[in-house]
Amino acid sequence: MSGPDRPPSFSRRSLLGKAGLAGAGLVATATTGARGASGTPDPAITDIQDWNRYLGDGVDKAPYGKPSKHEAHVIRRNVSWFTADTASSINFTPLHALEGVVTPNGLCFERHHSGVADIDPAKHRLMVHGLVEKPLVFALDDLKRFPGRVNRLYFLECSANSGMEWRGAQMNGCQYTHGMIHNVWYTGIPLRSLLAEAGLRPGARWLLAEGADAAAMTRSIPLEKALKDCIVAWAMNGEALRPEQGYPLRIVVPGWEGSLWVKWLRRIKVGDQPWQHREETSKYTDLMADGRSRRFTWVMDAKSVITSPSPQAPFRHRGANVLTGLAWSGRGRITRVDVSIDGGRNWTTARLDGPVLPMSLTRFYLDFDWDGREMLVQSRAMDETGYLQPNKADLRKIRGINSAYHNNAIQTWRVMPGGETENVEVS
Amino acid sequence: MSGPDRPPSFSRRSLLGKAGLAGAGLVATATTGARGASGTPDPAITDIQDWNRYLGDGVDKAPYGKPSKHEAHVIRRNVSWFTADTASSINFTPLHALEGVVTPNGLCFERHHSGVADIDPAKHRLMVHGLVEKPLVFALDDLKRFPGRVNRLYFLECSANSGMEWRGAQMNGCQYTHGMIHNVWYTGIPLRSLLAEAGLRPGARWLLAEGADAAAMTRSIPLEKALKDCIVAWAMNGEALRPEQGYPLRIVVPGWEGSLWVKWLRRIKVGDQPWQHREETSKYTDLMADGRSRRFTWVMDAKSVITSPSPQAPFRHRGANVLTGLAWSGRGRITRVDVSIDGGRNWTTARLDGPVLPMSLTRFYLDFDWDGREMLVQSRAMDETGYLQPNKADLRKIRGINSAYHNNAIQTWRVMPGGETENVEVS
Repeated sequence: MSGPDRPPSFSRRSLLGKAGLAGAGLVATATTGARGASGTPDPAITDIQDWNRYLGDGVDKAPYGKPSKHEAHVIRRNVSWFTADTASSINFTPLHALEGVVTPNGLCFERHHSGVADIDPAKHRLMVHGLVEKPLVFALDDLKRFPGRVNRLYFLECSANSGMEWRGAQMNGCQYTHGMIHNVWYTGIPLRSLLAEAGLRPGARWLLAEGADAAAMTRSIPLEKALKDCIVAWAMNGEALRPEQGYPLRIVVPGWEGSLWVKWLRRIKVGDQPWQHREETSKYTDLMADGRSRRFTWVMDAKSVITSPSPQAPFRHRGANVLTGLAWSGRGRITRVDVSIDGGRNWTTARLDGPVLPMSLTRFYLDFDWDGREMLVQSRAMDETGYLQPNKADLRKIRGINSAYHNNAIQTWRVMPGGETENVEVS
Repeated sequence: MSGPDRPPSFSRRSLLGKAGLAGAGLVATATTGARGASGTPDPAITDIQDWNRYLGDGVDKAPYGKPSKHEAHVIRRNVSWFTADTASSINFTPLHALEGVVTPNGLCFERHHSGVADIDPAKHRLMVHGLVEKPLVFALDDLKRFPGRVNRLYFLECSANSGMEWRGAQMNGCQYTHGMIHNVWYTGIPLRSLLAEAGLRPGARWLLAEGADAAAMTRSIPLEKALKDCIVAWAMNGEALRPEQGYPLRIVVPGWEGSLWVKWLRRIKVGDQPWQHREETSKYTDLMADGRSRRFTWVMDAKSVITSPSPQAPFRHRGANVLTGLAWSGRGRITRVDVSIDGGRNWTTARLDGPVLPMSLTRFYLDFDWDGREMLVQSRAMDETGYLQPNKADLRKIRGINSAYHNNAIQTWRVMPGGETENVEVS
């Protein structure tokens, strides 16, 4: 697929210059009676004050609030064909509909291996044992009075995120291509503090983290990572972990693949070698072109996606538009995001806004005029190690197309003249 | 009320020293079969694995997720006697149950003057007019493609927060004494950009912000503030504004009293003087001891509250405990929070954790041993201007006790030997 002959202008001057926004059709709503490229009839301006004729709901109506009924389309979505049973499946964060960098708790994607464990927090316990001086068992209350509570914002990405795209453009929307990710404030105790309390014995090199769900989800984690920045967390975005995110306890493994972030955490065992569990041998290993597998590929490399324009959030108007998206890296901070609208021939550095924190989603913007011509939009992220997100062809040369995991290639959306946007590949 | 004879030790050494946490009873759960001071019987350790006997809910169960059923007590609460009708009333954020600094959308306190306006976002319009070169009308789509979108974390505090405490300790819980506050990420366009697009005419000094609710909630805002940092926002914490927070548009007025943050924003008029509306004359003015009123008291001064221990979140154990709370200032960053456990005789500087941003809630902690004796716990905040939060007596000397507004005095909780905690005053 070829790109447009000449890329549209990125010049902000063309938007804010002499013609002003009115020239771009931006503020013509009330006077023209039309809504630009959207085609939606404009209500008469006399309708504007309709809402204030009625007394609204009072403060006792919703003790725990919900989104507006007009936002009912902003939900997690799963695909029925993906797995045989929804208890061992995944749904997707609606990235195309979100702003900023923090994912609302109700919209954080879910991945379960045996469904959501239903745990009474008063009865839940976390055991720390194995190669320790003093095995410990913590009730939730014990953790909440342990010294050194911390709050950290981290992304969690399933290593299968974008996995269906290895063999070519397939899923039509960033919710599906990149929605196995969320970004949440965690509150808890650094794991190193709990291990220090238990006392590590000579030979301690690995941890086993085990969940209390029916899958007894289990992963081996190197001790070095646990001591560096892992957290045993009981809260997300200020409130208790949601049931589908591990209520009442999960382990936070910053920058590393999501399956390590064991939910419904009940046990941490210290050992001298990895446990070679199912989820690190037959699953969550990366099948290469030569038939061998990469394993223990924990770190999520730098990656990004344009959330608008995208198939679910297309441009609806010519003239002024905001291209926006998200970038992240498991190796630290995002330092730069470039955007192309001509399939990767020319790149413009985007503006980052909001917090730019290590191992957290980072928001980028590019404000520009769109004259309605076809575009092939792409973004590429750079992190503080200097690593630049690769394109699909380069990544396939190294990793083949057999794997379901760790596809961090540049994503391309084709924006058609009417605004309709689709998932495509560029050679 | 007198304080304890001798304050308990703040020494962290006593917690983490030779005796270790086990000496403080922290990890005794599994072996003793008791839960320290809580009195709750400990389940047998063999119960721990109960949860994994059953397959849980699948990923199609909750397209928009909810908290665990075990968290049903963490809700906004209103008090029935406060106003005659819940459509013109307030409810309170459950600060005692929250972690970190960002308030979950479902738990942000509500204050309405005529209930929650029920607005169709496709039909909603924002008008900018008055002393401008070019009156403008924006649809929501127009704002979403306006250049310069920003994301900012700010607290919103009703100026009546803690207002019932002017005359003495009354409400038994920080949810009620301090819960007219929330702290949220906003996404929108700086108001200065919209005003620049309209073009200010000579003499422009003030703005009128008007809501589309049945109260047509209206406040005058000085132009200088609008040009400095106000935002016209359509999203909070990553998703659309909640209906009770102004869906689909509100004005964000960082650091200033909440009634200025007009919800369901439909109109911004530019003028040369304030409009003298009801909400800035008979309401939201501060009646002084001499019968005169202070007015245009917009800025929320530095303030803090201990959220645990507090009447709704008491200490449940002797030994290791985490004292925590929130501090904020409408004049910038919090630079220091001090904590006293003896009614203000001695102060210890608390640890700040999480983001310390201007005009945002800031989290503080003090980890210490509690030997079970009575305490009078207090916190006092200092902001980057050097202002130190005052005690009640000093504040009353200046402002009397007639006002319902702008009470930022130090709060005292009395912790009794059993852990029970109540709202008290110290002389």
